[in-house]
Amino acid sequence: MKQSTNERIGQLEFLFNPRSIAFVGATETVNKWGFIVLNNILAGGYEGEVFPVNPHRETILGIPVYPSVKDIPRPVDLAIFTVPAEKVLPSLKECAEKGVKVALVISAGFKETGEEGARMEQELVKVAKEADMILVGPNCQGISHPSAMLYAWMPIFFFPPAGRVGLVSQSGNILNILITRIMEGRYGVSKAVSSGNEADLKAEEFIEYFAEDPETDVVLAYLEGMRDGRRFMEIARRVTAKKPLVVLKGGRTPSGAGAARSHTGAMAVSSELFRAACRQAGIILTHTMDDACVIASSFLYRPLPRGRRVGIVTGGGGLGVIASDLCTDMGLEVVRLSPKTLEELAKLLPPWWVPGNPVDLVAGLDMAVIKPVVEILARSGEVDAVLFLWIGSPRRKDKPEGLQKGRGVDMARVWEFMDRHLMQFAGEMVQLMGETGVPVYIASSLDQRRGVENLYGQERSRDPLIFSSVEDACLAIGAAAEYSSYLRRENRL
Amino acid sequence: MKQSTNERIGQLEFLFNPRSIAFVGATETVNKWGFIVLNNILAGGYEGEVFPVNPHRETILGIPVYPSVKDIPRPVDLAIFTVPAEKVLPSLKECAEKGVKVALVISAGFKETGEEGARMEQELVKVAKEADMILVGPNCQGISHPSAMLYAWMPIFFFPPAGRVGLVSQSGNILNILITRIMEGRYGVSKAVSSGNEADLKAEEFIEYFAEDPETDVVLAYLEGMRDGRRFMEIARRVTAKKPLVVLKGGRTPSGAGAARSHTGAMAVSSELFRAACRQAGIILTHTMDDACVIASSFLYRPLPRGRRVGIVTGGGGLGVIASDLCTDMGLEVVRLSPKTLEELAKLLPPWWVPGNPVDLVAGLDMAVIKPVVEILARSGEVDAVLFLWIGSPRRKDKPEGLQKGRGVDMARVWEFMDRHLMQFAGEMVQLMGETGVPVYIASSLDQRRGVENLYGQERSRDPLIFSSVEDACLAIGAAAEYSSYLRRENRL
Repeated sequence: MKQSTNERIGQLEFLFNPRSIAFVGATETVNKWGFIVLNNILAGGYEGEVFPVNPHRETILGIPVYPSVKDIPRPVDLAIFTVPAEKVLPSLKECAEKGVKVALVISAGFKETGEEGARMEQELVKVAKEADMILVGPNCQGISHPSAMLYAWMPIFFFPPAGRVGLVSQSGNILNILITRIMEGRYGVSKAVSSGNEADLKAEEFIEYFAEDPETDVVLAYLEGMRDGRRFMEIARRVTAKKPLVVLKGGRTPSGAGAARSHTGAMAVSSELFRAACRQAGIILTHTMDDACVIASSFLYRPLPRGRRVGIVTGGGGLGVIASDLCTDMGLEVVRLSPKTLEELAKLLPPWWVPGNPVDLVAGLDMAVIKPVVEILARSGEVDAVLFLWIGSPRRKDKPEGLQKGRGVDMARVWEFMDRHLMQFAGEMVQLMGETGVPVYIASSLDQRRGVENLYGQERSRDPLIFSSVEDACLAIGAAAEYSSYLRRENRL
Repeated sequence: MKQSTNERIGQLEFLFNPRSIAFVGATETVNKWGFIVLNNILAGGYEGEVFPVNPHRETILGIPVYPSVKDIPRPVDLAIFTVPAEKVLPSLKECAEKGVKVALVISAGFKETGEEGARMEQELVKVAKEADMILVGPNCQGISHPSAMLYAWMPIFFFPPAGRVGLVSQSGNILNILITRIMEGRYGVSKAVSSGNEADLKAEEFIEYFAEDPETDVVLAYLEGMRDGRRFMEIARRVTAKKPLVVLKGGRTPSGAGAARSHTGAMAVSSELFRAACRQAGIILTHTMDDACVIASSFLYRPLPRGRRVGIVTGGGGLGVIASDLCTDMGLEVVRLSPKTLEELAKLLPPWWVPGNPVDLVAGLDMAVIKPVVEILARSGEVDAVLFLWIGSPRRKDKPEGLQKGRGVDMARVWEFMDRHLMQFAGEMVQLMGETGVPVYIASSLDQRRGVENLYGQERSRDPLIFSSVEDACLAIGAAAEYSSYLRRENRL
C-alpha cells in the first residue's frame, strides 16, 4: 500500500462522483444483477459516461458494449463488477492497468463461501492495493449518491431523494430499510454504502469520509462487527466532534452474534464493553431500525438542547402523561416551572387550567394560544427543549353511512384546516428556534402515520421533522440531550 | 344502589346497542360539541331513533327537536349530554323519571375543575343510582360501536371500521391514537369507550364487559389510575382467563404520575408493585401506544405459541441478526435446530447455505422455497413459533430521471409482482397455522410502512397481521409467549 489513509478516503470522491463507469457483467437478462444494477444507474439519471463490458453483446439498452475493460477507449473512474466471483480478478487486473480509481465489487462468492473464496478475495485486494485502487465489497449491494443521481446498487428501482443523512451498512437489506424509514420522515440521503465483506474499505472509512462530507449532517451506520475496535472508536471520536454518529449494532446477544458470524463473519464484541466505548466516543447507540432512523433524522434542521430540562405543551392530558413518563425514561427532566412563568402561562389559558409542566392546553386547539405558550417556555431560560404534542384529528377516508342517507353533514374538510394550522405552526417554530436556540419538537400522533405526509410535496425541505408519535419525539430529545452532554463534557460545545 | 354488578354490566348493552338516543345539548353551531357529536351519530349511520333536545330549536339537521327530555314521546335507552355542567342535573332527573337506561355525560366542568364540580358530579351519581341508570363520564369523549354504526363521540368525522379489539381509555386523545394505530394494521374495533372522570362506571367495568362480549377477541386499556387496585386485578384475572388483556399504563414515573394527577386525578401506584400484579393477573403491560396496539392486534387470527422456541426464516442476513437480538431481548429462544431438520432444509437451499437458525435464505426470494422452509420448521416439533422476514422491495413513487431521457427501462411492476407473492404466501400461512397450531409471524419491513397497505381493500378480514417491522414482530412473539406461559401456569391452556 503506497497511499496514506487520508488519500484512500479522499479517493472515495471517485466512488460517489465518478466521471465514468465501467460495468463488468452487463447483460440484458432482466432478472440478473448485471441488468438490474446497470438499469438502476441508467434509469436513475446518472449523467456521466457508462461503458458496459460483455464479450458477447454489441449494445445493451442502446449503449455500446466493450468486450473487456482494456477495450474501453476513455478513462474510467469507477468499475462495477457483477460477474461471477472467479471472473472478477482478470477484469480487475485490466482496471489496475488502466488506472481505474475505485472498484465496486457487487459479486458474491468470496470469503462468505469458505476458504477458496477468501483466497480469491485476498487476491483482489492485492491487485487493487498495488495499483492504488480502492475496493468496495465484495458481496455488497452497491452504493448511491442521490444528488449526483447515481444509484449503483441492487434494490430494484429504488431512487431515494437527496438529503443530509450519510449511511453505511454491513447489510444490504438493513440499508434499504433504514433509507425507507428516513424517507418516511420526508428526508433523503447524502450518500449510502453497503460495505459487504469489507475486504479493503471498511465501515469506519466511510464514516470518516462522511465526517468531512459537506453534504452530510448526520452519520448513520449499521454494524455487525469491526476488525479493529480501537481504531474504530478513534475514528468515531473524530466524527462525533463534528456531527452526530448514530450506530445500530447487530449481534448484541449470543444468538444475534451467532447469526452475525454466519452473515458477515463478524466477531462477537461484548455488549457491555461496546456500549461503554460508544458512550466514551459520543456515539448514539440504538437497537432498532426505527429508533436509529428517528434519532438520525431528528438532528436535522434543529439546534441541540443545552441540557436535560424539558417543557411539555400538550393538546391532551393523556398525551402529556405518556410524554412525562417517556421523558423520564430517557433521563430527561420534566422541570418544575417558576411561579413567574406559570403566571405568564395562566394569562393565556382558561381559569380551570391546573398550573404545571406538562402545560395541558385543556383541549385548546387555538393556534393563537399554542404559539405564545411554546414561546413563553422557549424564552423562559427554564427549559432546554420544548415538546409540543398536537392532538390532531383521527380520520378515516371512506364515506360514512349516514351521509348516504342524508343524515348529518360532511366535516372532512376540518382535517385540511387542521393540517394547514400545523404546517404554519411548524414554520413559525423554525423561526423561534433560530431566535432562541432552544429546540422545539413537534409530535403529531394522529394526523397520519409517519408524520403529516399529505402536507408535503415530493421532498421536505429545511423543516425539522414532525414526529409521528410522542414516543419517537421523546426518544429524539433523549438522544439529542445525550449527544449535547457529550460535547459539553469534551468542551466541544 | 339496587343493582348487582352483573346487572350493571349487562346494562351496558343499552350503551352500545341503544334502540333510541336522547341528545341533550343538540345545536346547529358547527364548532360546538353539541353539533359535532350529534353529527357524528347521524353521519356515522346509526339507525335507531335520535331525539335532539334543545328548548330553542324546532329542528336540527332536519330532525325534530324536543324542548326537554320529558317531552320525548317515546322510550329512550341512552341519553347523551353535551350541555354545560350545571345544566346536566335537571335533564338527568328527567331521564331518571323516564326510565332511561344509560347516561353518557360528555360535558366537562365536574371533578376536574375543583370542589364545586366534584359536588355536582356526586349528585349526578346519586340521581343515576337511585333510578338504576348507569352513568358514563362525565368529562369523557364518548363511545363507539362500529358494527352498530354508532359513533357517539367527539373526534370529528372519525368512523373506524368494526373489528375484534375492545378498547377502554382514561384519556380521549389516547383512545383516538390507539384506534388509529389499530386501523393502520387494517383492523377495526369492537367497542371503544372513553371513561372520563369515572364517577360511576370505571375502566374495569368495561373490561369485564369485554370479557363476555362475543364481538371482542382482545381487550386493550389505557389506564392512569384505579380506585381499587385489588378489585381491578380480580377482574383482570377473570378476563385474562378468556382473552388477552393489554394494558398501557400512564403515570409510571414521578413526573408522569404528577401529570396524571392533574389530568384524571389518578393516584400514583408504585410502578414495581403494579408490574408484579399485572404479571400475576396475566395482563400484558406496555409502555408505548405503538407497542400496545401492535401486541393487541398480533393476537388476532393466530394461535398462541406453546413455548418460547422460535425459528427464524429470513430473506436477508442482517434482518436475521437483528431479529435474533430482539427475540433474545424478549426472552425467546432462537433454538438450535436438530441435524435432521437442518438436513431437510439443506435440500431446499443453495450449497453455500450455512446451516443454522436463523435460516438465511441467502437472498432467495423464490416462494417455491420459502413456503416449504417455513413448513419444515412449523412441523418439526422443535419450534413454538416461526418468524418469517420478507425482504420486499424498497420503492419510491416518482419517475426516475433517466427514464425521461430514455436510458433504462421501467421496473416498477416488480413491486406488484412481489406484493402478490407475499399476499399469496400469507394466505398459505393461515392454512399452515390451522394444520399445525404453530403461529407464523410475517414481517415485511419494506413494502410500505404499516404493512403492505396497498394489498388490501377497505378492511382486512380474517388474516393475521403482517408486521411492518421485524421489531414489531419480535415484540408480538414475546408478548404471545408470555401470555401463553401464564395460561399454562394457571392450567388454562
